[in-house]
Amino acid sequence: MAGHRKLDHEFAFIKEVSSYFKPYRAKQTLVPVGDDAAVYRPAEGMGQVVTTDTMVEGIHFKRETMSSWQIGYKALAVNLSDIAAMGGRPTYFIISMAIPDDWTLDELLEIYKGMKHLADQFEVDLLGGDTVSIPDHLVISVTAIGEVEEDVRLLRSQAKPGQILFVTGQLGNAAAGLDLLLHGRPADGHPLPEALQLLLDAHQQPHPHVAQGRLLAQFAREYAISLNDVSDGLSSEANEIAAASGVDVVIRKEQLPVSRILLNYAHQRGIDPYTWVLGGGEDFVLVGTAPVEAVERMKQAFAAQNFPFYPIGYTTEGTGCVWLEGKQGKVRLDPMGYNHFRQKRD
Amino acid sequence: MAGHRKLDHEFAFIKEVSSYFKPYRAKQTLVPVGDDAAVYRPAEGMGQVVTTDTMVEGIHFKRETMSSWQIGYKALAVNLSDIAAMGGRPTYFIISMAIPDDWTLDELLEIYKGMKHLADQFEVDLLGGDTVSIPDHLVISVTAIGEVEEDVRLLRSQAKPGQILFVTGQLGNAAAGLDLLLHGRPADGHPLPEALQLLLDAHQQPHPHVAQGRLLAQFAREYAISLNDVSDGLSSEANEIAAASGVDVVIRKEQLPVSRILLNYAHQRGIDPYTWVLGGGEDFVLVGTAPVEAVERMKQAFAAQNFPFYPIGYTTEGTGCVWLEGKQGKVRLDPMGYNHFRQKRD
Repeated sequence: MAGHRKLDHEFAFIKEVSSYFKPYRAKQTLVPVGDDAAVYRPAEGMGQVVTTDTMVEGIHFKRETMSSWQIGYKALAVNLSDIAAMGGRPTYFIISMAIPDDWTLDELLEIYKGMKHLADQFEVDLLGGDTVSIPDHLVISVTAIGEVEEDVRLLRSQAKPGQILFVTGQLGNAAAGLDLLLHGRPADGHPLPEALQLLLDAHQQPHPHVAQGRLLAQFAREYAISLNDVSDGLSSEANEIAAASGVDVVIRKEQLPVSRILLNYAHQRGIDPYTWVLGGGEDFVLVGTAPVEAVERMKQAFAAQNFPFYPIGYTTEGTGCVWLEGKQGKVRLDPMGYNHFRQKRD
Repeated sequence: MAGHRKLDHEFAFIKEVSSYFKPYRAKQTLVPVGDDAAVYRPAEGMGQVVTTDTMVEGIHFKRETMSSWQIGYKALAVNLSDIAAMGGRPTYFIISMAIPDDWTLDELLEIYKGMKHLADQFEVDLLGGDTVSIPDHLVISVTAIGEVEEDVRLLRSQAKPGQILFVTGQLGNAAAGLDLLLHGRPADGHPLPEALQLLLDAHQQPHPHVAQGRLLAQFAREYAISLNDVSDGLSSEANEIAAASGVDVVIRKEQLPVSRILLNYAHQRGIDPYTWVLGGGEDFVLVGTAPVEAVERMKQAFAAQNFPFYPIGYTTEGTGCVWLEGKQGKVRLDPMGYNHFRQKRD
């Protein structure tokens, strides 16, 4: 909360921004935002989950493809997704922003309104922040805090041979949405086909799978479950699980949940859809492994809440490799996905 | 821990960096740095103190005036100082860095070594982080977590009329040190007089007054004590306390603790030393108010630990104004300090 010289401005700005955020956790918040630091009382028996993610203008988002509101929404969403991947319930968040002169006050307030939308949805409280100047390129760092039962572990290192690989949602939509924003928009005056909005939403307003993470946390006491959120693409996340656990992971290509909309759009663009499905990233669904007997019960628990749940492969004894199994057999998948995909990006 | 594509590099970097930091809190750290998020077990009955501060290259530091090591040191120090200002004991910290291409790996590792120095001193554990790319201007955001007894409140809003204003160290040295780095260095080949190192250290390696904050926390249960750390200058901090508490604060100019070295250097530069003492900022000592009877006991407690403790004024009934009382009477002090100082900066 310090280090900024334009005090009057900062106070007015913080006051306006603070008014957006309802205090859902007022009873536990011993000292709210506004002093040198905030203080909260943690719930008894709950581990405190902490994560941080930074987004940089021009690198992680462009003003041409994301509204200010969406930038704020996503900056918080990616952090809540990390909490979800530990099975946690998000409780608080803290914002640091380095702001260039070319952002208007209205745009900045829109960023906070985007965060507010998610804060209301998940009932998390703003616990503090720091706003400073920077010559160019907006930087948003969000630190999110959550809580999880002390005996719950949903780590990427907990995969065992003979488990089922699963994901909690469709893959590739976010990457296809970004492609659509950059290359696929119709000429001026032509509306975007409504169905494609699914892809844009996946990129611009990803939904953190917090409720799904909480469901998985219930199973974590009984079963060894590994878990990641899909921030860097399925290939990358599966490789993290395989390497951290010392098992091989086999992804069954036919079982991957891919939307028809993505397939159609990829066809239209002349792009192999699996570049997005395996290497795209930013889907912010959860991916993990669990014992066969747990997966049957997990399916039911997810279905009861109308959450998708897709078995997409399995684990074997191995040395930390990931394989894509299709009709033609198995090919090795490195963290970046298809090799030709990697070459295109590098 | 997500959102960065150069995975192999990031892993190697994180592994190297993680090796610097000793796990002082291993027993309480349920999931250490390295997964989607970290998890720790809070101590029973302790409120969790959270703060964040961001430093931007070219705004908060320059490579010409701060070594990489010092940049890292200071990025953590300013956060520990915020924890200190709440009476807290720092426990964990999280780093977000946006890194331009023109920073070498060695320079980046030096930044972490600077943090490590303080982490060892205060036995705080690195709990996570995110490193991303940025076109220009390094950005470091640190979020620090601490703990404080749930019934301790050291808020800027707790000043009452008739209290003593105090600080826990000398004022103005950091601002004078910055001036020295920018304008006052001797010509090439001439060594810097050794005494002036005090000023440089104050700017480059401020010492967070954590132990002093913990002492004050002991008194907070018995007495109403207001407290801030001096990040934005005494005038600014005193104005914050006055405004938040609805009292007037009177600073006695003659009682301000000013080093002879600062006075000499200011004289040599032809600058009124009180521009630095009142408006300079970044001293990261603590400033607060306490009842007269508490101050007598606080003096003794500080003396017993060889910590300085300076009464520098008092509070009165009022409307949130700050006054500087000198031989010629009282003048109003706005948050930026002397008016002529403000004009020079604007």
